[in-house]
This record gives sequence, structure tokens and C-alpha cells, in this order.
Amino acid sequence: MNGIDPGWLPPEAFRPLGTRRTLVRGSGPLVGTVRDEVTDACGRFGGEVVRDGAYDLLLDLVEAADVVEAADGGLGLGDEGFAFARDGGTTTVTACGGRGLLYGLFHVVRLGEEAFQGVRPREVHRPATDLRMLDHWDNVAVHPVMGQVERGYAGGSLFWRDGRARGEPERVRAYARLLAACGINAVCVNNVNVHATEARLLTDRIGEVAAIADVLRPYGIRTHLSVTFAAPVVLGGLSTADPLDAEVRAWWERAVRGVYAAIGDFGGFVVKADSEGQPGPFTYGRSHAQGANLLAGALAPHGGTVHWRAFVYDHRQDWRDRTTDRARAAYDHFAPLDGKFADNAVLQVKHGPMDFQVREPVSPVLGALPRTRLAVEVQATQEYTGQQRHVCWLGPMWSEVLRFRPRGEGGPSVGESARGGIVAVSNVGDDPFWTGHPLAQANLYTFGRLAWQPDAEPLGILDEWIALSFPSAPERLVTGLRRVLDGSWATYEKYTAPLGVGWMVQPGHHYGPSVDGYEYSPWGTYHFADRDGIGVDRSAAAGTGFAGQYAKPWAELYESPDTCPDELLLFFHHVSYGHMLHSGKTVIQHIYDTHFEGVEEVAAAREVWASLVDLVDAARHARGSERFEEQLRSAREWRDQVNSYFFRKSGVPDAHGRRIY
Amino acid sequence: MNGIDPGWLPPEAFRPLGTRRTLVRGSGPLVGTVRDEVTDACGRFGGEVVRDGAYDLLLDLVEAADVVEAADGGLGLGDEGFAFARDGGTTTVTACGGRGLLYGLFHVVRLGEEAFQGVRPREVHRPATDLRMLDHWDNVAVHPVMGQVERGYAGGSLFWRDGRARGEPERVRAYARLLAACGINAVCVNNVNVHATEARLLTDRIGEVAAIADVLRPYGIRTHLSVTFAAPVVLGGLSTADPLDAEVRAWWERAVRGVYAAIGDFGGFVVKADSEGQPGPFTYGRSHAQGANLLAGALAPHGGTVHWRAFVYDHRQDWRDRTTDRARAAYDHFAPLDGKFADNAVLQVKHGPMDFQVREPVSPVLGALPRTRLAVEVQATQEYTGQQRHVCWLGPMWSEVLRFRPRGEGGPSVGESARGGIVAVSNVGDDPFWTGHPLAQANLYTFGRLAWQPDAEPLGILDEWIALSFPSAPERLVTGLRRVLDGSWATYEKYTAPLGVGWMVQPGHHYGPSVDGYEYSPWGTYHFADRDGIGVDRSAAAGTGFAGQYAKPWAELYESPDTCPDELLLFFHHVSYGHMLHSGKTVIQHIYDTHFEGVEEVAAAREVWASLVDLVDAARHARGSERFEEQLRSAREWRDQVNSYFFRKSGVPDAHGRRIY
Repeated sequence: MNGIDPGWLPPEAFRPLGTRRTLVRGSGPLVGTVRDEVTDACGRFGGEVVRDGAYDLLLDLVEAADVVEAADGGLGLGDEGFAFARDGGTTTVTACGGRGLLYGLFHVVRLGEEAFQGVRPREVHRPATDLRMLDHWDNVAVHPVMGQVERGYAGGSLFWRDGRARGEPERVRAYARLLAACGINAVCVNNVNVHATEARLLTDRIGEVAAIADVLRPYGIRTHLSVTFAAPVVLGGLSTADPLDAEVRAWWERAVRGVYAAIGDFGGFVVKADSEGQPGPFTYGRSHAQGANLLAGALAPHGGTVHWRAFVYDHRQDWRDRTTDRARAAYDHFAPLDGKFADNAVLQVKHGPMDFQVREPVSPVLGALPRTRLAVEVQATQEYTGQQRHVCWLGPMWSEVLRFRPRGEGGPSVGESARGGIVAVSNVGDDPFWTGHPLAQANLYTFGRLAWQPDAEPLGILDEWIALSFPSAPERLVTGLRRVLDGSWATYEKYTAPLGVGWMVQPGHHYGPSVDGYEYSPWGTYHFADRDGIGVDRSAAAGTGFAGQYAKPWAELYESPDTCPDELLLFFHHVSYGHMLHSGKTVIQHIYDTHFEGVEEVAAAREVWASLVDLVDAARHARGSERFEEQLRSAREWRDQVNSYFFRKSGVPDAHGRRIY
Repeated sequence: MNGIDPGWLPPEAFRPLGTRRTLVRGSGPLVGTVRDEVTDACGRFGGEVVRDGAYDLLLDLVEAADVVEAADGGLGLGDEGFAFARDGGTTTVTACGGRGLLYGLFHVVRLGEEAFQGVRPREVHRPATDLRMLDHWDNVAVHPVMGQVERGYAGGSLFWRDGRARGEPERVRAYARLLAACGINAVCVNNVNVHATEARLLTDRIGEVAAIADVLRPYGIRTHLSVTFAAPVVLGGLSTADPLDAEVRAWWERAVRGVYAAIGDFGGFVVKADSEGQPGPFTYGRSHAQGANLLAGALAPHGGTVHWRAFVYDHRQDWRDRTTDRARAAYDHFAPLDGKFADNAVLQVKHGPMDFQVREPVSPVLGALPRTRLAVEVQATQEYTGQQRHVCWLGPMWSEVLRFRPRGEGGPSVGESARGGIVAVSNVGDDPFWTGHPLAQANLYTFGRLAWQPDAEPLGILDEWIALSFPSAPERLVTGLRRVLDGSWATYEKYTAPLGVGWMVQPGHHYGPSVDGYEYSPWGTYHFADRDGIGVDRSAAAGTGFAGQYAKPWAELYESPDTCPDELLLFFHHVSYGHMLHSGKTVIQHIYDTHFEGVEEVAAAREVWASLVDLVDAARHARGSERFEEQLRSAREWRDQVNSYFFRKSGVPDAHGRRIY
């Protein structure tokens, strides 16, 4: 692949398919993609693409009506689903849409030899949600502070460089192929913080977006664009961007027509409004629903969607004011707007109430707007989880979020109710390994697969990723990779901010420890540690009331330190260092223990990785090793700063007499 | 003056001179400058430059021999001194050099009408040191982090913009005139951190330096250049910069010849070597003396000097290691080298052992190298003292430093022993008021005057500055300015880091509080606060030994918390919050009290400034008012963060029950 890392699609992964005879039936551009994939694999491994006669595999694009006939009732495959079966020595993938056929193909690839063995009754696979999106926080022009990719830890952007489109379709194509192979069907190509240069992608620079869309399309991926709410002013020269203004509406309608003229299957807009300095409807005394509906109205005739981010809070908070709670903000802003959003407006909600910390409760917003299409947003780019210098496989965290039932046991899970989509901030750049740390590829793959099937077992997905990425891996490699990745999130949590309290990172770049880094800041991110205790009282009875934003049983569970889960205790309660956790440890001893353990676990993972040197290609192994050195250094720094900080504050010695500075 | 702020030389300040008849006698370029100044003043106010006949003022450049004859023995005026006298209705300034005559002229301006009244016996004025320099930390190319001027708070550079010379001689000329009027005679035109672009000023871009030198020269100012020690490698293409290498030596000799060909009176080099990442002789296993002497050797034939900065320490320190002490570093590195530096090599020493904190002890290096020419460096740019958003008149601080006698009572003061010069980092940029905060001009003026006469009373200098800058100011304005400026350093100290412990600033940009900002950092800047106490034990008996680097009586004084001055207590000792100060307060109560007082004092100063609105020109007053708003906001932030931090840690309530968050 011209030096482009194959990720989880190394040629070898296509061997089982590539040695078979395959019949591809149907027509259309995505069928062409499927046929090309099969042809390529067969060319490599000696199989055959047949036009008739005997075959081992049938990839069959049919009319929806035919599927109904063939089965007992409709399978509801839609455009993206597929049916998989094996009988009489033939494996059959049936789909009603090009995307479905493509996903069916990659399903066969994932199964490997297994896809061609025995008998398998028909299974139907379809995604839980129609939109499985990656948001790229890529800037077109290099931002003086944030650089080419905001919170990017994998080199430059795939799409943009120094103010211009990169125009490197091969790399983008390889990326699209990887995404399709894990089920992602939408990409937003620019940062939600839309600066002056980026704003113009909507209008006179839409051609550059169209060029990217052309490359993504053959892999079933629609293109989305982040736009600035102030576009009618900054681009259109209007005096207002008021969503109720007729001229503003007309401006957006014209702009959207221009977009669809260039990109017929354009997905829609992503908007960060009234957030961290971005403009929004508040300027004009309008609600977020009015703001979102303005864009939704312009997009509706063309089938587009607006993703309106719920990340709205006061980032100029006074730390002295303990009544204002950033965690409350999204619910306070958006819950009252339930039912007021247009059908093609999606409220895109970060999974936690704060900002992608290593541990947060699930955002109560995800249970608070039953009449609104919601998307849940996670962060594949590891802003707060080690910035792709640390191994931190986030599958288990995302799985917890997606399985959480915000309205209680009887209600739908987050994954089930995310009708507006499941979204991740991309962790990919022009890095030779795509993601900086080669093992961070597992996060991207896992995200795609969880977005497709939110109740999947993450460990099973990890195994898929290992099997694909390292075909025919010996058991020692498989076990080693599992040991390094599984549990890495828990390890990261151990050596960073304890018990759900979050932050404690260096301000600005967010890498490395600074226990008080955000303690007196306007960002609303506090731990309130003093000589006696730590944590934020967010109870309804005595605190900020955030716990009361949840439905039962969560509101009750979180309300009391007695019932609150240990891992979220300091998010919801201020307790003494001597407070006894359910684990049977005091808070302070828990802090010491987890920080010592976390470093030991990193050291152990580093050893495991080192032991795999003969089984992983040299460049990849070297990159991983270099990152493990940094992770270990950094984990020690976290351990020692956090332990020293709390020892200095509490005066409580470690029960095991370990070294605290 | 074409919209250029006249600083302490408003036309009005020349009225007394400009109404008189003046005879200027002598020849040479600086006499031309003097004559032009007088001519200009007379043109404005009706006086006359006479060629003979009666005159009120004689500005007389004479041969040194004539002065000897005229007086009882030699006056030793040198090139820069002058004699001032008034008798028989005539005022006489006598000098043996052009600079002396120029300084004499400005002396007359400073005296105003007084210069022309009564009888005044001859006074001789001469500077305490030959070199009174401003170091500009100006970058030629905009540095991605540090910008155009490193630690600059007054806009862009006077000399450089976006990689090129600005070529605005008028502004530079106005600047040179202001400097001459307070006695400064040397300017280093680029940052001590010499990046790639700046390195080339030494060679192919020397013409740009020469153009600046041409503008500074008529005001008696010699031009100096910061160079990189690695120049033979980065510019010359040699494989080494080893100071003992013959080719390296030859390279420097050639380079210096080129410099002098362009600038005949070039002053010399300023070098930051083996410091904060800058290259130096350590790379080649050579000493700093060997490094400095390499450049000194190249400069000597031309009469140039190398200023070698003593700011060498480990900036990659491990905060866990309490035995390493940054404060010790300069002494440890340089004291053993006493006597090893060439005659034209000057060791340039920051006034304190750390880095321009609001309170530090005087550096013991200043008393430790009796056989070495030392320069003392202070910081006019207010990196750690409010960044020219806060009023902080540093005259009293500098005066304390310059009067300090590092070798004990019998020894010379810092001011007396600074044979290599008195240096400040400039606080000037292309700001309309030169210095950002208009009142920060007082720092620049005060520095120049103290460099001339280190034992001068700073308050007298402040009064000079007020009288010059606001001619014929009513008493209310004079009193108001004094109230705002005098004591502002003490006020700043009150609301920032307490009792000499320093830092507690936001890392990186150094503005605003972050009590733990540098507490776990590699920069060696700690306070070690825990729940029981705070401070750094630098005693010889039990601490880092830094106190032992001083001569008596200082070593003994600082060694014990019982004798250590309150204001330096936490610099030298770790004590409990309940430790009783000489002031009769506990450490913790002192922290609370000073922080409340500091804010009150800022509020009061702000009121005083507001009350002067009718007496200060509108733009200047508005700028000052805007800065006072910020100072008050920032001082409150300091107060509340520092008080909260120590209340949370100590648990000791304020004795007066004031609000701590």
C-alpha cells in the first residue's frame, strides 16, 4: 500500500477470501468496491472472481423485495444490514444496499477461515444506529496554539496542511477502507472550532470538501462539515446571524444549495455554538433549538442533518463560587428544549457531563430528552487518556457508557437510544502508524465496531482487531497484546486522577499531572482538596444538585456516599481522607495503592511488549517501545506527584511504608 | 515628536535651558548632538545658542589636561564624567569627552530652573561603572512560543519585525535620547536566546546591526550583540565549537573582524551558554572561563568585551531530589573560576540566585569572585512583577541590591564592585507609551540613574522622573504619582509569593498565581508546602547549604530562622505555619494579612490614579486606568488563591475572620 500502514487490513487478512471462488452479484458503485476488493485478494492468493458456475462465496446485492420473499417475513436489512449464512459448502452474504454488501464483505474477512467452514444458519447483521461518525478536529490553517489538528497526537491532518487541502487521495482512500471495515459511515472533515480559514469550506472552498467526499464515497462514507454559526456574518457580510431573521435563513438555504451542488450525498453540519468562545444563538436571545432548527431547515430538503453539540457551559466560571457546577450545564441548557428540535436536528452529547475524563458518570442529558434525536460523542483521540503516548484501550469505557440505561433498568441503553448516531473524535493523523501509538489503532477499530453494535463485548472486538491486524499470530503474540491492551484503561485510571474526580492535568495541553492545575481556574473543574478531604458535593440535598438530574435509580444511587460507586465517589461527594470505600480501603490508602499499582502495571505491560519483539515488525515494535518508556516515566510522575500532593495535604502515611516524596 | 511618546523628555522640560543663552564649546559628533539639543530648545523657547559674548550656560568640552590645570589636581572626569558649577551668573558644565558633555547637558535639564540660580560650587559627576547596559530580549524572527520579544510586555521590538530589521530610525533615535538622558551607554539589540535567524546577525546580517548602531551612536550608546556559542558550527559549518580548537578560534577572530569592519565602536558580545538549552563549552568538556576567553580573545584587539551570563543551572531537575538546589548553581559553577577570566571578559550575574523574583537574597556570586570583572543584571521588564499590567516600581529593590555588601560590612557594595557593568533587561517595545504601562517608564529611568549612581536614593530619582515627565506638575499630581509608585513593589510582594519563597506563578507565561505551578517541575523552583509548614531549608547545617555560600555576616544571619530577615525566611528555611516572625505575627497570619493588605493597597492606588484624571493627558490616563482594573482583578486572584491554598492546607482560620474561599 505504498508505505501506508495497512492497520487492521493487512493483505494476509484476505487470504481465506482470496483463495476462494467468489461471485459478486449486483451493480452500483459500492458493488464495484466490493468486486475490486475481492479481485485484489484473489489476485494475491490465487482465488477467482467467477461470473457464474460454482463458487464458495456469494456476495449478493438484491432488491429488498427479494429478501422478503426469500425469508419468512422481512429482514429489514435496510441499506446497511446484511444476512450471512453458510450451507451446502457455500457462504452467502445478502444485502439490499451497497453499504450492506460492503459490510458483509468485511464480515467475511473478519471471520477468516471460519467463514468457509461448516454450516451456519442465517444471521442478520445490522447497525444499531444509522450514523457512525468520526469527527476530525483538523484545522485547515495551522492554529497558533492548537496546531494543525486540535488535540491531535498522530501528526498532521489527513485532509489539510498549512491552509490548503493536502490532495493525497490515496491515503484518504486507505483510511476510508479501514473505516468501512469497522463500520464507520460518516466523517466530519474539520474541527468543531471553526476559525476564519475553515469557515470558508462552506462556501468558496466547498470544492476541496467535495474532493475528499469523492474519495470517501466508494467506501460508503458520507462527508460532514463543521460550520460556524456566524457564517452569515463572517462569510455572507450580513449584519446578523439571528436564526429568526429571514435574510439569515435565505443565506443558509443558498449556502446549503451550494454544498449539495458540489456533494450530492453530503451528510450535514456539525456545530459547536455558544461554547468555549464559539458564536451561537445566545447572541441573539434565541434558544439552541432555534439555532439548530435554522440549519436543519436549510438541510432538510436535501436530506442532510445538523449535529448540534450539547457542550455548552460557562468557561469563565469563578472558582470561588461553589454553587455553579459545570457538570450541570448541558442538562440545564438542553433538557428544557426536548421536543423542540427539528427531525433532522441531532443533539450531540459528550458521554460524560465534563469533558472526556478517564472516569465520569454518563451524562444525564442522554436520558433527559426522549423526544429528541441524540447522538453520543466519545473521544478516540486520547486528550485526557495519555495522548497516544500511553496505551489506553478505551473499549471497556465506551462499552460501559453505551450499555448504561440513563432512564433506569427498564429504559433503553445509551447505545439503543442514540438515534442520532454514535460519534467519536478521531485519533488519526498522517502518522506512519495512523494513530501515533500503533496500539491506539485498537481504539479506532473498537469504536467503529461498538458504534455498529453497542452491546458487543469489547474484549471480543479487541480479539477481532488482534486477529485482523496480526494474521496468523502465534498464541504468545495474541496473549501478549491482550495483556497489554485489556485493562490498560483501568491502569491509566489508577495512576491519574482518583475516584472520578477528574482533571489534575497540566492546563492547556492536558498532558501529565498537575494536581492543582485546574483548581483555581475559570474552567469549572475542581477537586476541592484540603487537609481533611477531597471531592465535589454534587448531591441534591447538600451539593450542586447535579445528582438530581438523573432518573431513578441513578439519582438515588449517586445521592449518598454510602451507595455511590467507589469509582465515582469523588465526582459526587466531598469526603474525608479516612472515608471507607466499599472496597474496604480508606480514600487516602486507595489513592496511594492505586498509584503504586498503576505504575507497576505499566512496567509489566512494557515488559510484555518488550517480550514480543520477535513477533512484531521492527518499526512498529520500536515505536511502541519508545512510547512505553514515556508512559512509564509519565506514570511515575503521576504517581509521585499525586501521592506527594495528598501526603503533604493529609499527613497520613502510606500503610505499606512505600516511598512518597 | 511625530507621535512618539516623549517619556521623561517632553519639550517643556527644556524650557529653562531653552530660554537662556548657551555657548557650546568643543567639537566632535556628540558635541553636535548637544548643540542640536540646545538649538532645538532655544528655537522652541526663545533662547539663543551663542558663539561668543555673554551667556548663561557654558557647555565646555575640554582636553583632559586643561581640566587638571583648572582644578586642584585631576578631576578624573574620564570620557563620561562632567563638572558642574555656577558662579557669577554663569552655569558651567565641563567635560573631557563627548559623552560627559551630553550627560552634563541632561543634568542641566534635570535641574531645570535651579541650574540657573544662585551660586553652586563645582560638583563632579561621574558614573560608578563604565558600562550601563540594556539587554533587549528581542527576537528577529517571531518565536513560536516567546513571540517577537521574549518576556516583552510593551508590544513589538523597536529593532526587528517578522524576521527583518524594522528600519525605523526615528523611533530608535528617540529611544537613544531617553536612554542618554538617564545615563545608559550600551544596548544589546537581540535576545540572549539566540535562535537560527538571530545567529546570523553576527555575520551576513551584521549590516542591520550596524544601521542600529549608527542611530544609537549620536547619543553615546554603544551597540552589543547576543551571539550563540555554537556560531562556528551553525554559521561557519565547522564540526566543533570547542573553545580550544584552533579553527574555532580563527573563525571567531574572522567573525569579529567582520563585526568591527561594520561597527567601529562595537561594544561586544552577550552570551548565554550552557543555560536552559543554549549550547556552551560544557559540550566540549571546557570550562566557562575557557568559553568566555575564546570570545574575549577575539574581541580584545578591537576593544570589545564579552558579557558571559552566570545564569547556569540544571533546568531538568528532579523535584523529588531535595539535595539539588538551583539557588546554589551559579556559585558552584563560577566561584571556582575566579581569576581565570580574561580582562575583557565580564561575568554577568543576575541579582538574585533564582530568577528575578519579587524578593530574593542578593546572589552570593556577587561576592565570590573578587578577581573577576562582574556585571550585575536586573530585570526592568516585569516578567515576575506584574508584566507591566501591574504598577511595580522596582527602584527600591534595585537599590537594596546595589547597596548590599556581599563580603560584609567592610567590603564593597554590589554597585561599587560591579566593574563589568550594571545591566537591565529592557522593558521597552513599540508600544505608544514605550513600556505598556505608562508608569513603567519610571523603572527604565530609575535603572539608568541607579546604574550611574548605585547609592542614590531611589525616591529622589522617582521625583526626578516625575518632575521631568510632568513638567510644572501641581503638587497634587506629584503627590499622587509618588503615592502610586512608591511602595508599589512592597504592595506587589504582599499579594504574591510570601516571605521570599518566590514563584507561585502560572508556568510558561509567568503571569498570575498558581501556587503549585512550579512545585513538581524540573525547573528547581519549590516551596514544599505541606499541612504543617512551608519553605526551603537552605541552611548549611541541615539544608541545601546555599546559606553557606555567603560571606559573614550573611552566612550566619541566613543560617538560622531566628536571625534570618522575615522577608527571606521561607527562602532559607522550612518553618511551621505557626512560626512566629520578628514582626510578631505567625507565618500563616502574615500570609493572610499581607494578601488582604496588598489588594487594599492596589485599590487605594487605583483610586489615587483615578483622582488624577484632570492632570494627566487622556490617553495616558486611560491606559493607566485600564491597567489598574487588571491589576486589581489580578491582585484579588492572587489574594484568594494564595489564601485559599494555605487555608486549605493549614486549616488555620484567619484571626480576623475575613473571607477565605
